[in-house]
Amino acid sequence: MERVAIAGLGLIGGSLGLALRRELPEVEVLGLARRQETADTAMRMDAVTAASTDPAILSGADLVVVAVSLAETNAMLDLVAAHAGPGARVTDVGSVKANVVDHAAAVLDPAVNPFLGGHPMAGKEVSGLENAEADLFLGRPWVLTPRPGTDMDAFNDLVQAVEAIGARVLLLEPEVHDRYVALVSHLPFLLSAAYLLAVKEQPHWTDAAGLASSGFRDITRLGAGDPAMYAAIAAGNREEVLGTWAAMHEALDQLEAAIVRDEGETLAALLEEARRTRAEWLAAHPEAAAG
Amino acid sequence: MERVAIAGLGLIGGSLGLALRRELPEVEVLGLARRQETADTAMRMDAVTAASTDPAILSGADLVVVAVSLAETNAMLDLVAAHAGPGARVTDVGSVKANVVDHAAAVLDPAVNPFLGGHPMAGKEVSGLENAEADLFLGRPWVLTPRPGTDMDAFNDLVQAVEAIGARVLLLEPEVHDRYVALVSHLPFLLSAAYLLAVKEQPHWTDAAGLASSGFRDITRLGAGDPAMYAAIAAGNREEVLGTWAAMHEALDQLEAAIVRDEGETLAALLEEARRTRAEWLAAHPEAAAG
Repeated sequence: MERVAIAGLGLIGGSLGLALRRELPEVEVLGLARRQETADTAMRMDAVTAASTDPAILSGADLVVVAVSLAETNAMLDLVAAHAGPGARVTDVGSVKANVVDHAAAVLDPAVNPFLGGHPMAGKEVSGLENAEADLFLGRPWVLTPRPGTDMDAFNDLVQAVEAIGARVLLLEPEVHDRYVALVSHLPFLLSAAYLLAVKEQPHWTDAAGLASSGFRDITRLGAGDPAMYAAIAAGNREEVLGTWAAMHEALDQLEAAIVRDEGETLAALLEEARRTRAEWLAAHPEAAAG
Repeated sequence: MERVAIAGLGLIGGSLGLALRRELPEVEVLGLARRQETADTAMRMDAVTAASTDPAILSGADLVVVAVSLAETNAMLDLVAAHAGPGARVTDVGSVKANVVDHAAAVLDPAVNPFLGGHPMAGKEVSGLENAEADLFLGRPWVLTPRPGTDMDAFNDLVQAVEAIGARVLLLEPEVHDRYVALVSHLPFLLSAAYLLAVKEQPHWTDAAGLASSGFRDITRLGAGDPAMYAAIAAGNREEVLGTWAAMHEALDQLEAAIVRDEGETLAALLEEARRTRAEWLAAHPEAAAG
């Protein structure tokens, strides 16, 4: 791997560039930006060794990483298909995989431009190149999603680069990835948003707001995220997201029934089960507690 | 106010003692603990000027603050009724108010021991005297819940003490307090627990757990709380808690419908409404963001 092109210089693309520049300084990093100002900033930050707003810059790379938002990923794959050189491998960083992998299979010839879906499980509350940092991926999972038939040998250098920047490679089929993130990532932000919508409907919300404290702050933190991004994710992972809904209603019903019937011990046992579930997760994934 | 007795030396009682010792050093602070070890520790920390496991210590106080857990509050009020001197005022710190105020009215003679319910909106993820700190109440609301007929003049020195330790006094009827906290405090922890219960039921949870990240951490933080305490709160504020349930199911249904029908704009508009609700709350209550 001599030249990596990063198509999209936001938080993820910029952080990837910074991490590659630090850990693999011998690799050239080409950046494709929508605006010249972003290209200039990326150069100044040394997140790239060259940057342009012209997709022709992609043609020089032997690996292209699509790092635009999920809503723009398929369109960028079309652009990559038009501009990537023969033999260049292609990957992406979208937070939903089956849709993207399907689209890539439709527009990229695997004999010319092999594709492997990817999803670094890292992020921040803020977006944009100005918030990029080389340490963003440290200790975090970077999911790669081969389909049966994907030539993984072609992506050995991607795997090595991901590990070089401190992330942990995790191989999952696209559909399995999507099922997992629906549960641990997409349902949480939809739940946080649903709570805020429920709150806003109450006539006493404005007065009650003054009593909201750290618990309210924690449960609503995800609800502060980018609505367009969340909507694209929920739409892109529609089936799996909807698959989590029944379980959520059921868990609410379970708690409600214990409260309605005034079954204090049942309620305490359910809450203890919830507490234990979180404690076991924290114990098994201490790195997630800190991140 | 010359002598305050704090009945219960945990996180709240201990923090109150430390704050009173710092801000009103001329006031004697008497502590009632269940165990001698706690009484000794409170003395060593200078959270109290005297401490005992004997409820007779309450008799010397002109203000008694009941600071045991919500589940133990009514029993402690019975003890206070038996031991408080004539003229001593009584307050508490329980997170549900109507039940406690009713019980106090049943066991305390307002002509002998006037009662005023209280709820400092402050806390930590950890409990116990060892985590107490004088700054716990800084900038936080301290709700006082008079009923019609409560002699507020009798509690002027309580109001002044609460302000002296940096909290903001907020007067609310007990039932109004309970409605507000059901929405902004009790529903959030039940929701966090419900999510953990839903997650735990999924056959793929153990595998998906490895992809759980900061979003999962935030939405489940409340679910890590003390199950017995949560159960007592939910049971104690039963009607108001159940009153929030329909709104929560409805908000989930709204999001689900938009996803099922693939109405991307409706979904984005709902998520934007959620985002705005949180942003407005943060802007109006910057102190809660930091706390």
